[in-house]
Amino acid sequence: MSLVVVGSVAFDNVETPFDKIENALGGSATYISLAASYFTAPVKLVAVVGDDFGEENIKLLEDHDIDLAGLEIVEGEKTFRWGGKYHYDLNIRDTLFTDLNVFENFDPVIPEKMKSGRFLILGNIMPSLQLKVLDQMNNLKFVVCDTMNLWIDIAKDDLLKVLKRIDLLVINDSEARLLTDEPNLIKSARMIQEIGPNYLIIKKGEHGALLFGEDKIFSAPAYPLEDIFDPTGAGDTFAGGLIGYLHRTSDVTFENLKRAVIYGSTMASFCVEKFSTKGIEDLSSIEIKSRYLEFLELSKVNDDE
Amino acid sequence: MSLVVVGSVAFDNVETPFDKIENALGGSATYISLAASYFTAPVKLVAVVGDDFGEENIKLLEDHDIDLAGLEIVEGEKTFRWGGKYHYDLNIRDTLFTDLNVFENFDPVIPEKMKSGRFLILGNIMPSLQLKVLDQMNNLKFVVCDTMNLWIDIAKDDLLKVLKRIDLLVINDSEARLLTDEPNLIKSARMIQEIGPNYLIIKKGEHGALLFGEDKIFSAPAYPLEDIFDPTGAGDTFAGGLIGYLHRTSDVTFENLKRAVIYGSTMASFCVEKFSTKGIEDLSSIEIKSRYLEFLELSKVNDDE
Repeated sequence: MSLVVVGSVAFDNVETPFDKIENALGGSATYISLAASYFTAPVKLVAVVGDDFGEENIKLLEDHDIDLAGLEIVEGEKTFRWGGKYHYDLNIRDTLFTDLNVFENFDPVIPEKMKSGRFLILGNIMPSLQLKVLDQMNNLKFVVCDTMNLWIDIAKDDLLKVLKRIDLLVINDSEARLLTDEPNLIKSARMIQEIGPNYLIIKKGEHGALLFGEDKIFSAPAYPLEDIFDPTGAGDTFAGGLIGYLHRTSDVTFENLKRAVIYGSTMASFCVEKFSTKGIEDLSSIEIKSRYLEFLELSKVNDDE
Repeated sequence: MSLVVVGSVAFDNVETPFDKIENALGGSATYISLAASYFTAPVKLVAVVGDDFGEENIKLLEDHDIDLAGLEIVEGEKTFRWGGKYHYDLNIRDTLFTDLNVFENFDPVIPEKMKSGRFLILGNIMPSLQLKVLDQMNNLKFVVCDTMNLWIDIAKDDLLKVLKRIDLLVINDSEARLLTDEPNLIKSARMIQEIGPNYLIIKKGEHGALLFGEDKIFSAPAYPLEDIFDPTGAGDTFAGGLIGYLHRTSDVTFENLKRAVIYGSTMASFCVEKFSTKGIEDLSSIEIKSRYLEFLELSKVNDDE
């Protein structure tokens, strides 16, 4: 059994109302791999960077026992860079710049030894690339996929093809509404499930997340954080914690997906407490379990009337 | 022990993308009383209407065993009227008109026999009137209060006086942010609790509700309705189910407030399924209990890893 993560590795410039940071480690595959690494090892990362990526970042990933055989380093090119600025209300973000650099010609090649991976997570990249990854895998048990409004707008046909080949789509509420042109989230979810994936998770930021199974719904709370420092990577970290837990338990029933959603939320809550990946670089299993239990407590009702 | 409800009784014109209705029974005290009547009786209603109110509406309230000794009927004047229109996205509403009519000179007089009421709920009326009601009560155990953005804007001083004299404030997320000028809901909640009320409920519409106790938080899910017909009165119905349940159990601990939040949510979910008060006019206790249990199931996690 192994877990393959495909997505972006990047450098981010981030401004929040509290502080700013430049050239910080970012990218969907980075957050996913780091978060998943607390549950299972080695996580197998497939991505591309330039020759500016830096030893300290390689070391960070290796320290988390992440297998970098699929991390292509292109000489003479630069790593993907993204800049964003958060408003006073941290739910609102402007993209300041997107320099694709080496990511512009990214053509994911899955190393031979990773093609038999049982669990695959497709981070937010162009749907045509997600399809190429799916074509190379030959023994899949469970596929999780993320996407974004840009691909819904400009690559919807490919995205629909992807949806037919995955088990779980993880998107946020505005993306779900955009994809289906339906404002009611429950109806929207049912429409997405009819397109393909058996399971769907709709992330609602500060309002938690909804998990949809064949005929069941689970509502997960958000962790009540008073100080959110940097929301960047929270969604990817959520997905990483989720698939890491699913891979460790090798149980993809609805009941276990509920627990995976809470573990994903737990990891995301750590992520937003610090800039960049700092919040998920050095956690103990006790910290994670303890916050997971706090999460469960948040929505627990003793029905002993 | 008795439960006193003070607020508005009105006629509403409501347009939704699906249909429209004119001269429908509405008003905060109407929804609160009807919802509470499923848990405790008689609910004691204090409000004012004109001579156009109509026997059929009196009968509806009396059929729910609501004590109308405090319902003043002013001859020669008209009942408060409100008109609203919902957008395709039902979270967005425009007020089309507000005719205060008899409500303009409303000066709530609590009948002598109701002044010793132990539970009081102050529906959304001008804070100075809420203060007048509080001044007349002499044996209060638990006071719930609702308000709206208009009073935060034009009567904040009076509202702050109200907050110091109540036990539970029920408001929605945008009102909480407006009241405290703080975008983080958790911080905003703590700021409101510092002003006065021990308990606070922040309603988040389709995202459920948060209950804040002294040092505890409970996150309640929303019922996953695919067909919301008319959101009018949902918040009042929530408050009515909540205080009705609290009054019946006479238990205002945090644990019991959690159950009350779920019962309030249950009643609100019935309310929005039909126009006006139709959704909460004729429910059975089995229907209510059954949906309450569905609510509990929505966020239940079996942590038997």
